[in-house]
Amino acid sequence: MSERKWVYTFHEVEEAEEHVGGDWNEVRALLGGKGANLAEMTRIGIPVPPGFTVTTEACNAYLAAGDKFPENMWEQELEALKATEEETGKVFGDPKNPLLLSCRSGAVQSMPGMMDTVLNIGLNDVTVEGMAELTQNKHFAYDSYRRLIQMFGGVVLGIPDEAFEDVLDEYKEEKGVALDNELDAEDLKKLAAEFKAIVKEHKGFDFPDDPFEQLRMATDAVFGSWNVKRAIDYRNAAGIPHDLGTAVNVMTMVFGNMGQTSGTGVAFTRNPSTGEKKLWGEYLLNAQGEDVVAGIRNVAEIQHLAGDMPEVYEEFSGIAERLEKHYREVQDVEFTVERGKLWMLQTRNGKRTAKAAVTIAVDLANEGLISKEEAVSRVAPGQVDTLLHPQFVLEAKQEAQKAGKRFATGVNASPGAAVGRVYFDAATAESKAKDEGQDVIMVRPFTKPDDVSGMLAAQGVLTSEGGATSHAAVVARQFGIPCVVGASAMKINLEKKQLTANGITVKEGDYISVDGTSGEAFVGEIESIAPTLEEQTELLELLGWADEISAAEGIRDVPEGWPTRGLQVWANADYPDDARRARTYGAQGIGLCRTEHMFFEAERLPIVQKMILAETSEERTAALDKLLPYQRDDFDGLFEAMTGLPVIVRLIDPPLHEFMPDEHELLEAVIENRLKDAVEEDKEALLVSVQAMHESNPMMGLRGVRLSVVMPEIVSMQVRAIFEAAADVKLRGFDPHPEVMIPLTGHINELHFIQPKLEEIAAEVMEEKGVEFAYKFGTMIEIPRAGLTADQIAETAEFFSFGTNDLTQFTFGYSRDDAERNFLVKYVEEGILPENPFQTIDRDGVGSLMDITVKKGRSARVELEVGICGEHGGDPSSIEWCHLIGLNYVSCSPFRVPVARLAAAQAAMEHRG
Amino acid sequence: MSERKWVYTFHEVEEAEEHVGGDWNEVRALLGGKGANLAEMTRIGIPVPPGFTVTTEACNAYLAAGDKFPENMWEQELEALKATEEETGKVFGDPKNPLLLSCRSGAVQSMPGMMDTVLNIGLNDVTVEGMAELTQNKHFAYDSYRRLIQMFGGVVLGIPDEAFEDVLDEYKEEKGVALDNELDAEDLKKLAAEFKAIVKEHKGFDFPDDPFEQLRMATDAVFGSWNVKRAIDYRNAAGIPHDLGTAVNVMTMVFGNMGQTSGTGVAFTRNPSTGEKKLWGEYLLNAQGEDVVAGIRNVAEIQHLAGDMPEVYEEFSGIAERLEKHYREVQDVEFTVERGKLWMLQTRNGKRTAKAAVTIAVDLANEGLISKEEAVSRVAPGQVDTLLHPQFVLEAKQEAQKAGKRFATGVNASPGAAVGRVYFDAATAESKAKDEGQDVIMVRPFTKPDDVSGMLAAQGVLTSEGGATSHAAVVARQFGIPCVVGASAMKINLEKKQLTANGITVKEGDYISVDGTSGEAFVGEIESIAPTLEEQTELLELLGWADEISAAEGIRDVPEGWPTRGLQVWANADYPDDARRARTYGAQGIGLCRTEHMFFEAERLPIVQKMILAETSEERTAALDKLLPYQRDDFDGLFEAMTGLPVIVRLIDPPLHEFMPDEHELLEAVIENRLKDAVEEDKEALLVSVQAMHESNPMMGLRGVRLSVVMPEIVSMQVRAIFEAAADVKLRGFDPHPEVMIPLTGHINELHFIQPKLEEIAAEVMEEKGVEFAYKFGTMIEIPRAGLTADQIAETAEFFSFGTNDLTQFTFGYSRDDAERNFLVKYVEEGILPENPFQTIDRDGVGSLMDITVKKGRSARVELEVGICGEHGGDPSSIEWCHLIGLNYVSCSPFRVPVARLAAAQAAMEHRG
Repeated sequence: MSERKWVYTFHEVEEAEEHVGGDWNEVRALLGGKGANLAEMTRIGIPVPPGFTVTTEACNAYLAAGDKFPENMWEQELEALKATEEETGKVFGDPKNPLLLSCRSGAVQSMPGMMDTVLNIGLNDVTVEGMAELTQNKHFAYDSYRRLIQMFGGVVLGIPDEAFEDVLDEYKEEKGVALDNELDAEDLKKLAAEFKAIVKEHKGFDFPDDPFEQLRMATDAVFGSWNVKRAIDYRNAAGIPHDLGTAVNVMTMVFGNMGQTSGTGVAFTRNPSTGEKKLWGEYLLNAQGEDVVAGIRNVAEIQHLAGDMPEVYEEFSGIAERLEKHYREVQDVEFTVERGKLWMLQTRNGKRTAKAAVTIAVDLANEGLISKEEAVSRVAPGQVDTLLHPQFVLEAKQEAQKAGKRFATGVNASPGAAVGRVYFDAATAESKAKDEGQDVIMVRPFTKPDDVSGMLAAQGVLTSEGGATSHAAVVARQFGIPCVVGASAMKINLEKKQLTANGITVKEGDYISVDGTSGEAFVGEIESIAPTLEEQTELLELLGWADEISAAEGIRDVPEGWPTRGLQVWANADYPDDARRARTYGAQGIGLCRTEHMFFEAERLPIVQKMILAETSEERTAALDKLLPYQRDDFDGLFEAMTGLPVIVRLIDPPLHEFMPDEHELLEAVIENRLKDAVEEDKEALLVSVQAMHESNPMMGLRGVRLSVVMPEIVSMQVRAIFEAAADVKLRGFDPHPEVMIPLTGHINELHFIQPKLEEIAAEVMEEKGVEFAYKFGTMIEIPRAGLTADQIAETAEFFSFGTNDLTQFTFGYSRDDAERNFLVKYVEEGILPENPFQTIDRDGVGSLMDITVKKGRSARVELEVGICGEHGGDPSSIEWCHLIGLNYVSCSPFRVPVARLAAAQAAMEHRG
Repeated sequence: MSERKWVYTFHEVEEAEEHVGGDWNEVRALLGGKGANLAEMTRIGIPVPPGFTVTTEACNAYLAAGDKFPENMWEQELEALKATEEETGKVFGDPKNPLLLSCRSGAVQSMPGMMDTVLNIGLNDVTVEGMAELTQNKHFAYDSYRRLIQMFGGVVLGIPDEAFEDVLDEYKEEKGVALDNELDAEDLKKLAAEFKAIVKEHKGFDFPDDPFEQLRMATDAVFGSWNVKRAIDYRNAAGIPHDLGTAVNVMTMVFGNMGQTSGTGVAFTRNPSTGEKKLWGEYLLNAQGEDVVAGIRNVAEIQHLAGDMPEVYEEFSGIAERLEKHYREVQDVEFTVERGKLWMLQTRNGKRTAKAAVTIAVDLANEGLISKEEAVSRVAPGQVDTLLHPQFVLEAKQEAQKAGKRFATGVNASPGAAVGRVYFDAATAESKAKDEGQDVIMVRPFTKPDDVSGMLAAQGVLTSEGGATSHAAVVARQFGIPCVVGASAMKINLEKKQLTANGITVKEGDYISVDGTSGEAFVGEIESIAPTLEEQTELLELLGWADEISAAEGIRDVPEGWPTRGLQVWANADYPDDARRARTYGAQGIGLCRTEHMFFEAERLPIVQKMILAETSEERTAALDKLLPYQRDDFDGLFEAMTGLPVIVRLIDPPLHEFMPDEHELLEAVIENRLKDAVEEDKEALLVSVQAMHESNPMMGLRGVRLSVVMPEIVSMQVRAIFEAAADVKLRGFDPHPEVMIPLTGHINELHFIQPKLEEIAAEVMEEKGVEFAYKFGTMIEIPRAGLTADQIAETAEFFSFGTNDLTQFTFGYSRDDAERNFLVKYVEEGILPENPFQTIDRDGVGSLMDITVKKGRSARVELEVGICGEHGGDPSSIEWCHLIGLNYVSCSPFRVPVARLAAAQAAMEHRG
């Protein structure tokens, strides 16, 4: 067996391709995203400092062996180092002409800031002098040296940053300077000596003088950092598998801090907030990369580089354009200029806001760089959701401004409006949000990887430091959390848990409002509104493409007679306004109109209660006769709004006691009355009635079709109202398509009992009105038994609609009302459930039952219309499952329709049959 | 196409066999049970009066055509009549030598008294005189004539019996006689004329004088009676299909009322109450059959016939023996002696008590008439159940006797002890039992088919009239209802709704106790006990045979590795006493020991509550440490009692609030206290705790394994107790087989979470005690999701036990606590559900899910032990389903074990693979 190759120089991208069989994704898996791109840039002639990559395979071998380098790896690393020495003409550890290296992690998927980096490897008390000589810049040499010791001490040896920072701060104070680079060479030399003493003090051994030992330990630390807690947490949050491992990229150091002809910067080839096609980024002269990323010093816009270094800027612009064309995607690049020479240190696909993602995808497609299908596949459905997130009501915000409630402005790092209570640390923010269900805004001077869990639980993030590429900004954009950074007017007192800014003090737990779109922060709660879709032309264009993809016939490889196109997206809407919005958002039907909401309106509820308490069928019918016109009016508007499209109306579903006064409150009132000898007969009687309706487990009680079997008068009224309304609408020249849905069916005989009675009413009404139109009768599938006997049920039902909320309840035996509080949160935390099954369809259990249902149902009625109207209908993973099992449509809230349209198209592309 | 044959004479049994293809069951389906047996008796040379049968096919054609005779049927009936005339030498309607006929219904399954019969067809004002001349007995001729008019008027023309009976009673009073046959010939002649006037008055037309018209109308009436309400009700109750139809049997009249050399009787070839091998029946001299069946006149025991008519008795005994051998079954026969000549009018398999059924089956097998397998198949599992029904405690009964509470004695018609409230009509009895859940005793002078619904709802039946073959007695025995008939001391006042007997008055709603075994009735409630199985030697023998059948290998045609024997029967037992009884009753293991019952005992509950309210894990563990010895003791006795057999212990299942005081009561108390300014801090605090534990749907809440995930301390204690007990028992020389069952699993990760912790405790205890024994960890299957993902779950669980109570709840979405009251009763009544799914497994829904579960489970672990421990485990139909899907065992309450053993064997025989 030939020797395993663990290390590839940046010139060996072909060898890497050969090793994995030519697949670029596999090259990325092997070399990590950063390493693969460094090699790829080298291949296409872009200036990259020489270096090499130790593979993820090596990392996994290292982890599997219990943190030991695999055989020959180190030897190969030394060989690659030799090649780098030859390319650069420098020698690692040479006192005169020392080669310095950076050592960075590079996972397959970028995990910003979470893996460890060490710069200036190769410096020691001897080589630092050589470096000073060589560069004629002692200040630079010793600054690099003290940085090495500090970073090495921190990330390789695990010494707290404060240990070094405190000494640095003392020095600066002593010297009366504000910035690190105001210290002189001698200061820095002393500082390096002190830093080495700190290492000795903390670790009990000396800082390693041997450059090779430095490299070995750094490589080891990068590998080890794959499994530190914050990396695991991030992967959990981002859904990245834990077995990928990280590569190690070792690269010749180039220096942006060698005076005013040097500099460093980061940039996006297009604006990552808006998607605008214009270079977007920032740089610093005479600085190293971490100064930019950390957001500590004030940076300049990338365009200013054209003034500072015109040739470099031109070269850089050209490289940016080449990279975008090469990768057919917006690039996020890092560069350094060393004494006028441009070096590209990294390129990767740029993270972006939802808005930018849509704009860029549509622009790239329209520019011909990618296809429409690729454009549709490049926007995550969750991103579209953020575009429909609320924004502050303009007047409300203006009023808050006038009232002096704006306490800070900063960088508009991630758009959207957020309102919540302030917490100053991740742990509190997370627990307040998760345990108490509070809306939370996390406020920090700046954020670090440790803060991610708190950010993910927050509605919004506000920092006093950092810029648009700071940690807080990058993470917030990725997860769609409204975020303002660098609001420098804020003085944050972490001890007292309060901030002051512009004379306003905000304490822990106070409400603030953060506008991530404008970069403002306000005390108090500001009203927000949902944005209108109509303004978002790129999104409309993208969703149009998505619909075309979904509507294409022949997408699915399904049994004869099943739908072969992708999913339609319908909406759940109870009122005409909802229906109109749903139509605007692209809904192709109403999948669920809940009629009982109509019962709760103030003028109707007393009639409803009278109907419920009726002792004879006549009394009940009399009350229902009064409700009929109300219901008819509701349906009239709905059918008109949805002319030409199907509208599924669900007959009454909840148990009747939901329409009655609360039993507990009534009981307390009655007992009080009794003890006061102030008995109210009406209340006593009402209590008896309400108690008689009490159920131990109402979720499994007298509701849905069961209610209709016991008390058919209500649904008789409802069906009459539906058909009278449809007839009226038809007579006015519209095209109604009513579909009557019977809820909670568990046994075919329930439909046998009630459906003929209702169909008779439908026929009666059409005869009375002298008009005909198509209609359907069908049922929800919410009861496991209905799914298990779907072949029987489909003989009578013309359509199925999965009520996955209830179906999940019964299939799991979880009561939604109680489960979250009692055990479900713990179940998700402990990983007992991979996700909350009420949010994402549990494919193994509920999903497999759905699959059985569709197959059985269509075995009895091949043209059976099957959809889903539970809350899962707007969840991308659940939508994918609906596509996989052959549903006709998903139905979700109007606001989720755009998300669902995109998710449906992506599912169709992903699983083309 | 050749002419359809609708009518077969009693000599044409071969033709009937040929018509249906030789199958005797099909002959019975064609000719009805009675007709087929009359033809069969004719074939083997037993004296049967000549006649013919109109087929059930004719009946169904008649009903299908809207109550019209099918083409040629009447012509064929006339032809068969001609043959009968030739055989008897008499002529139908002949003034001198008239042939008289009876016309009886004859369904496939005997439905006693529910179909209509007309006797003496052929009599009119002319032929009655010829009859008088011929028999030289005018009294007899006119008695027959008035009987014809009365019966014809009643059953063919639908005139109420009272119309005739009132006139008859007036006559008897006028004449000063008590019995019908004390009236003289002239009286009877006048009575006949008056009866004809009653017909004219009620119907507006004359009683038909034409004998052929009489026969035509009688045939029509028999067909029509198939669909009268009481027949439909009976079929519904007895589970007889409605599309079988009835045959019509037309037979030459023979007369038992032609003086003292004539008579009529009914008999069983063995005692139908005890099974004793001895002719058992009764007869009346000079009487017609209905006099015996109606129980109006006092009858003589069949053995007395040997004195009255020695030769007839000898012939009859011989025929009885021949019939029993021929049919290989106890026969219930009717006979008439006309002037010394014996005629057999009917034979059929004899209905019998449960006790007799067992004794007869075992005796017939031991006599070699039938095989052991046939014997096992002949006893209905439900019958065995009645053998284990409670009997009155002897001392309690003696005391009641001494206290003068026995108010009547009668015929012990159907054994068993019954206690309930008295109702005097079927409708009230039924509604009190069904709607109010009362235990009901139905008391009537005698019962009629209309009363069956009331009888079925009653615990017991008591009549003042009738004998052991009366309607009340037959129905009660068939349905296993304790029954005493002919308690003639009782004066029943239906108007006042009370009875008096021996100076005691019992009013509607009063409690009485009826001993169907001894024939006694008492006022008040008498304590009863369950009979011991040990005394029932025949039953033990039969159950032994059943076990042999079930235990035979190769019974089932199942996938490789599945159990190929029939089902084992295990028992659900929580305490050592239960376990011992279960073992006595033949249980081969404990399928369910519910540990939470142990928590409810008086000295333990306060500790349990302390444990629940504990605020720290330490407090909780301290309380659990106190419970540990109790639980260990419980298990110790159980394992000892079940040495050598498996014992499945279920870990704690119910939600913890079940162990706490009732929330409502507590709330009322607290509110009262508050209003009285008498606040009790403890109670207030307790209320807060209890309210915090409140769940909207506790059935779907924090229970079972969910509780163990959230609070693992309880099950940790339980598993320690189980293994410490098993170890102790093992050390004392017994052979414990503990199996630990985790309830309510829905996701494999729940087992992953808790099972390793518990297995660790098991290992710990065995090491501490220095002893090893085999054990299993497994789970209940109660959650639909568990069934749907059984392949995943079986990778960890070593056994499955279906908790079909919960599984039915979740699969149907029915809350057991509420469903019956709110809709389930209505569902069963309306036929929406064919039966209560909590009593009998719903095969299409729950059953199919069980099937999926077993297949998936064994796909992952072929040796998986699968059983059922829900209440369905004792239900014969459910047991059959368990056999069909390949379970290892069923587990039920100890009292149901014998029933289940029989049902398991029958399922094995019925579905031999």
